[in-house]
Amino acid sequence: MSSFGVHQIGVVRIEKEACYIEILNPYISGLRHIEKFSHVFVLWWISMRDNPQDRSQLIASPPRLEKSIETGVFSSRSPARPNPIGLTKVKLLKVENNRLYIDRIDAIDGTPVLDVKPYLPGDSVKKDKIELPEWFEFLQTED
Amino acid sequence: MSSFGVHQIGVVRIEKEACYIEILNPYISGLRHIEKFSHVFVLWWISMRDNPQDRSQLIASPPRLEKSIETGVFSSRSPARPNPIGLTKVKLLKVENNRLYIDRIDAIDGTPVLDVKPYLPGDSVKKDKIELPEWFEFLQTED
Repeated sequence: MSSFGVHQIGVVRIEKEACYIEILNPYISGLRHIEKFSHVFVLWWISMRDNPQDRSQLIASPPRLEKSIETGVFSSRSPARPNPIGLTKVKLLKVENNRLYIDRIDAIDGTPVLDVKPYLPGDSVKKDKIELPEWFEFLQTED
Repeated sequence: MSSFGVHQIGVVRIEKEACYIEILNPYISGLRHIEKFSHVFVLWWISMRDNPQDRSQLIASPPRLEKSIETGVFSSRSPARPNPIGLTKVKLLKVENNRLYIDRIDAIDGTPVLDVKPYLPGDSVKKDKIELPEWFEFLQTED
């Protein structure tokens, strides 16, 4: 089993009126042309779950369900997982210098960012082609 | 700038007739219920680009273009990037024990896998809502 090192290239900033990804100075030239994309993926480090207990969890209980379900972490977007890497598709609202203003992100202020990738047509799946477990019927998903 | 450690939880296997993700023994229980999803994201380690030169690249030239374009790595899916984490949306064809049979992946046999996440409706963007740089007009994308 191999291990690898990753490092922070940016940080999530949550303010009252806006949220944005701030890219660290050494990486700013990596943003060239990013404003031409409408959506990007943000890969972020789930710092709060970077501890041996959370990283050894293999079973998750999806929140907001009436009855308790136990599912594998790889069948879940639970933040407690062996490699606490968060993945969020975001809408890119505007780019100002090293700041990517986005619509929303499920990360807290100060969260380290590992990567930003453009969202391409091949990342999209038509909603009527996406199959989910039956318990997702109880969860409202945004359109 | 903070650094973090990630470790391998599986491996990409490419065979003549099939390709699959093999989850390592200690992580198998993390797969519970994964067969209920039609698509998953695979996060994998781009081992071939895990070297100081490739990890210091901030500019990429998209392949298969008639004229040369230089774009930032964060505006590109280039494998040479500060954190060489590959992200691929795959179709889950079948699950057999610790093997996730998938339709295709842009990784080579033996590639370490870092995470598997279910594909949820919120990950989808309607194709007519996805904006791309003009040079993508020259690239065919799969529907």
